[in-house]
Amino acid sequence: MTTPANTSRKTWNQLLLVGVGLLGGSIAAAVRQAGLAKNIVGVGRNPERLQAAQQAGLIDSYSTDLPSTAAESDFVIVCTPVGRVVADILTAATACKPETRLTDVGSVKATICSELQIQLPEGHSFIGSHPLAGSEKQGFEHACPNLFNNRTCIVTPDENSSSGALKDIKQFWKSLGMHVLEMSAKCHDIAIAETSHTPHVVSAALAAMLASENQPLTSTGFRDTTRIAAGSPDLWVDILLSNGKAISESLRTYTDRLNEFQNAIADGDATTLKKLLQEAKTNRDSLNT
Amino acid sequence: MTTPANTSRKTWNQLLLVGVGLLGGSIAAAVRQAGLAKNIVGVGRNPERLQAAQQAGLIDSYSTDLPSTAAESDFVIVCTPVGRVVADILTAATACKPETRLTDVGSVKATICSELQIQLPEGHSFIGSHPLAGSEKQGFEHACPNLFNNRTCIVTPDENSSSGALKDIKQFWKSLGMHVLEMSAKCHDIAIAETSHTPHVVSAALAAMLASENQPLTSTGFRDTTRIAAGSPDLWVDILLSNGKAISESLRTYTDRLNEFQNAIADGDATTLKKLLQEAKTNRDSLNT
Repeated sequence: MTTPANTSRKTWNQLLLVGVGLLGGSIAAAVRQAGLAKNIVGVGRNPERLQAAQQAGLIDSYSTDLPSTAAESDFVIVCTPVGRVVADILTAATACKPETRLTDVGSVKATICSELQIQLPEGHSFIGSHPLAGSEKQGFEHACPNLFNNRTCIVTPDENSSSGALKDIKQFWKSLGMHVLEMSAKCHDIAIAETSHTPHVVSAALAAMLASENQPLTSTGFRDTTRIAAGSPDLWVDILLSNGKAISESLRTYTDRLNEFQNAIADGDATTLKKLLQEAKTNRDSLNT
Repeated sequence: MTTPANTSRKTWNQLLLVGVGLLGGSIAAAVRQAGLAKNIVGVGRNPERLQAAQQAGLIDSYSTDLPSTAAESDFVIVCTPVGRVVADILTAATACKPETRLTDVGSVKATICSELQIQLPEGHSFIGSHPLAGSEKQGFEHACPNLFNNRTCIVTPDENSSSGALKDIKQFWKSLGMHVLEMSAKCHDIAIAETSHTPHVVSAALAAMLASENQPLTSTGFRDTTRIAAGSPDLWVDILLSNGKAISESLRTYTDRLNEFQNAIADGDATTLKKLLQEAKTNRDSLNT
């Protein structure tokens, strides 16, 4: 794992992960590998799954009681589905010390941050995070300590955010090897609608249209283009409806572009079609992987 | 490379590859690895590129003169862009013996097969092939002998096809480890519009819409979904316009499905959205990779 030389590392006494799935499990693994916490505790609703995550060596201990574990933790990262983040942060905040750092990993930020700005108990500070790393797979069994290495993490402070909390949370993601970007929750949601949420819908619609008799005729192109469509429907209903306005706008831009391709094909217009395909290739090539 | 036990292997005296790019180069590498030809000759338009392919060990010799090399070959595989296949097959057929086997690797079959059925010299037989294997990369430098292993190859004979030629061509692809399916050229084009050509357009439109400032905010999801958009615009203009009618039809089906997602998101309809995402996931999961 590469850690930028100018990043000082901070060691936490107790890191609490609320939700020990793919992301929570991967954070646990990365934190353990980098030695960033003396104690890693997992909280969830299913004791059997938590026990298995402990046996897998990801967490040191577990509990189904969020308030009591939050009270003893100096860093809380909520890794539950976006629809549950606000409630989990509020439950933790009600029990923990004001200086406990609170963040999440949800891929939608505006609703979460604005609700918490209103509801968070006086003196507490929550700063949203969105590590751009993940997988279509679910469960801590697929956790990987290198999931975050060399990836981007967006943090979304607002005008009321504690500068100490912001510094600590940014430093935490950097110490996992991430490049950290700051932006407003609203800007985050508009940008991620384009780079993540719309691609999910585009990919899912393609997978959904596949006729069963044509399954044997798919090759790597179809498979790569639809990989993310294997993601959890429950998680994605939550995400897509939490950012519906920005996604609807982005899907309109997408269908306009798709129409340009459709018209060029229907008209047999090689010049326009080549221009469109070249634009796509130039954009894709610039992503370097 | 796995070769089904019931496949008898045939060794060719001289295999002629017309076009030594990613596919032609990969066939050369696979044929050499499996020992299926005594001599592998490459024909193309650029002697420097052909010489480099020879130096890379892919082909034994090369020429820019298709008729004279075709005359000495017992198997000719045309690996040029789909818009050049008919002309290259006709040039080869005019010079070669009637019993020389002629096929191609183009991802569009109906126009090629119907034009050749009319124009092919008396006594010659062409059977179209489409190995469902490839890459967004171009050039023999990316050739791989295992590209075809365990993949599907579609062959598209018609009522006039020589049964001997069909047997040989099917056996050839099987001896590269492929699963061979027979279907009409027209059925091929309709099916591949759905499984390959429409996915290319869907992916390219997504890459084309990416705002440059959002490039750092793309993650593996965006990258996988747009990988094929890095393919050659020239090759793809050719493919998309050669199968325009089937692709237009398939894109209408796609946009209908996309509209269902769009409406569910705009309406905040979690039940419908979950149903659509579940359908997508079930289809994608059934592809097993």
